[in-house]
Amino acid sequence: MIDLVKNSSTVSRRTKASVIRELLKLTAKPEIISFAGGLPDPKIFPYEFAAETAKQVILKKGETALQYGPTEGLADLKQEFLKFLDKYEGINAGPENLLITSASQQALDMVGRLFIDAGDPIIVELPSYIGGLQVFKSCGADFIGVKMDDEGVIIKELEQKLELLKNQEEHYKFVYLVPDFQNPSGVTLSEKRRHKIVELSEKYNVLIVEDSPYRQIRFQGKSPKMIYKIDQDTLKTSNIVSIFTFSKTFAPGLRIGIILAHENIIRKLAMLKQALDLCTSSLNQFIAAEFLKTGEFERHTDRINKVYKSKKDAMLTSLQENMPEGVTWTKPEGGLFLWVRLPEHVSADDMFPEAVQENVAYVIGSAFHCDGSGKNTMRLNFSYATVEQIGEGVKRLATAVKKRMFQKV
Amino acid sequence: MIDLVKNSSTVSRRTKASVIRELLKLTAKPEIISFAGGLPDPKIFPYEFAAETAKQVILKKGETALQYGPTEGLADLKQEFLKFLDKYEGINAGPENLLITSASQQALDMVGRLFIDAGDPIIVELPSYIGGLQVFKSCGADFIGVKMDDEGVIIKELEQKLELLKNQEEHYKFVYLVPDFQNPSGVTLSEKRRHKIVELSEKYNVLIVEDSPYRQIRFQGKSPKMIYKIDQDTLKTSNIVSIFTFSKTFAPGLRIGIILAHENIIRKLAMLKQALDLCTSSLNQFIAAEFLKTGEFERHTDRINKVYKSKKDAMLTSLQENMPEGVTWTKPEGGLFLWVRLPEHVSADDMFPEAVQENVAYVIGSAFHCDGSGKNTMRLNFSYATVEQIGEGVKRLATAVKKRMFQKV
Repeated sequence: MIDLVKNSSTVSRRTKASVIRELLKLTAKPEIISFAGGLPDPKIFPYEFAAETAKQVILKKGETALQYGPTEGLADLKQEFLKFLDKYEGINAGPENLLITSASQQALDMVGRLFIDAGDPIIVELPSYIGGLQVFKSCGADFIGVKMDDEGVIIKELEQKLELLKNQEEHYKFVYLVPDFQNPSGVTLSEKRRHKIVELSEKYNVLIVEDSPYRQIRFQGKSPKMIYKIDQDTLKTSNIVSIFTFSKTFAPGLRIGIILAHENIIRKLAMLKQALDLCTSSLNQFIAAEFLKTGEFERHTDRINKVYKSKKDAMLTSLQENMPEGVTWTKPEGGLFLWVRLPEHVSADDMFPEAVQENVAYVIGSAFHCDGSGKNTMRLNFSYATVEQIGEGVKRLATAVKKRMFQKV
Repeated sequence: MIDLVKNSSTVSRRTKASVIRELLKLTAKPEIISFAGGLPDPKIFPYEFAAETAKQVILKKGETALQYGPTEGLADLKQEFLKFLDKYEGINAGPENLLITSASQQALDMVGRLFIDAGDPIIVELPSYIGGLQVFKSCGADFIGVKMDDEGVIIKELEQKLELLKNQEEHYKFVYLVPDFQNPSGVTLSEKRRHKIVELSEKYNVLIVEDSPYRQIRFQGKSPKMIYKIDQDTLKTSNIVSIFTFSKTFAPGLRIGIILAHENIIRKLAMLKQALDLCTSSLNQFIAAEFLKTGEFERHTDRINKVYKSKKDAMLTSLQENMPEGVTWTKPEGGLFLWVRLPEHVSADDMFPEAVQENVAYVIGSAFHCDGSGKNTMRLNFSYATVEQIGEGVKRLATAVKKRMFQKV
């Protein structure tokens, strides 16, 4: 066979297997309680609705549902999503502002391919979504990390980095943010800072990628406005690219996401998508359109949010009861994850095999840091395990933490 | 807004809108009979089967069907496809040789991204599939075209190009072939030449990409063996990457394709796919698996092939009856397209608006030629229009041809 190392492209050499996937392989034993994945709870998928809708869509709209569709996405889904944007986000947009993708990971790939040349600096949060880091890196990005606190990315630091890049005449292409219940940290960017982000976008003429897969999974509290909305209401830079998905509100198995952006950006993305995969499944687009149209979206997210809130509360309670002093964690009002910080000198990387020994798993926080920092942090998922498993799993995790902290393993 | 021209990546600047799509916009008038598209006939989609299967899959396997799936694809579909390969192609493979993609266009994108760096020469047929040219170009490919005759790519010319590239110490990455009922020409590569291709693959240690979306759409005659199979039976180079799709045998709206290759290639492609879109729709993979498992594949391709044969025959008859001397065309035994050659000096490019004037449309052959040649050729699709429309449309086309040939427009 040909020499695969010699013949591989730069893109493929830059694309590494996700650390998460490799770690997950270690945690496949049935006795392990895993907080390492990021899967929705399959017990609450809307099975009846999905089954009946799939059938009816094929019987009634099969000529379109089973055929190739327009690269930009089906008009039916766009129309329902525009109503959704108006009703829930107060965002005024038209079909020319939307592109349907094969879920949000493809949206990230497309944004990466549209803008990034090898060596272009991309600004990301510390920590950031690992799938974003992975795909932007494969496009050739160099990362500039900006620290976060409990209100999200720290504006002063972001501005310093932008100023530096500007002075260096670098081709900085965009700022990548997961502003709502961030994966991995669970942190939500405050509305005040969102305004500042829009101001920086204007001042430095830089694109903001607002990746928001968890925004609708809110159990309590009030959503800050979307960055896209704030821009529309204030400076009108048109520099915001917002990414949505049905993977958390409905079902990841459909692979349906949506990009909202200025029509000139959408036009360029559509040209790319034609080369990438021609179009996204028409059948699945119709099913997603019905999910919005019939009101199943509201009914179902109500159900999800009740279940996830009880799981999140169980995790917070068990952390409170079991973790030793010096360990802290975020208290998210939604999403799928929370973030645990061990004392500075305690390595969650090194602790991982010990946790597996205790039959519990998490994702090491350093995997989400483009600069390799965050070794004392970990991501815990609370959507997948049952309430009982969560209580027990956190206990096991606390055992591992205490051993490492006090017995100096 | 940011300057999109200044900020766009090289990839996106290299990605152009397909000529076909632009032409199709001119042919949207209802009075036009169009042979320009490449759509399956929606009248014969297996609606009842698809509707009931979608419903049952969600009710019975929903926990998997609606969830994220493995990046490499679902075991169920792989298993059915391995049986298919064994039964119809005599190919012996394992699940480690398969990767499920979001249809064959994504497979081409992945192969392009795995191998091509900017400036790498890729060998393609003259003419070649436009979606392949488009995506490989976006990956940075330079094209080396090899002429075809009615038995497919001309081996002597292919060897000359390979020899030249080798002597120039070029990074030639692969030979891209559509060996069965090629889009656009309808030509099938002869079995004798397939053996030669495998020999060249060994001699020049070059990968062969065997893109075969139409192979199962055979109305008459006998299929030559797949290049993959010939390699497996003879030289065992493991240099063949074969691409399949359910878009022609079942429904493009599912977006399901499959790559068959050596496991080391599959492993690298899977790493890329993780960054591209994490996984392909589990729901649609299950539906495709049932299509094979239940025998609906055989029943449905029998139906398709009867319908398409009658349409192809209608087109051949009408060409015979109406075209002036000096015009020739291919007589495919399957697929969706045939290929018309006007006399050398007659430009099908220039004739296009005149044909639209006569209310008939085709795709200009030059669009499929990486070197801009083939101006006297055109691609006609026979799967979409009705038999009556085909008869009438070819008449109109012959009128346009005669006007241009004899009235020296």
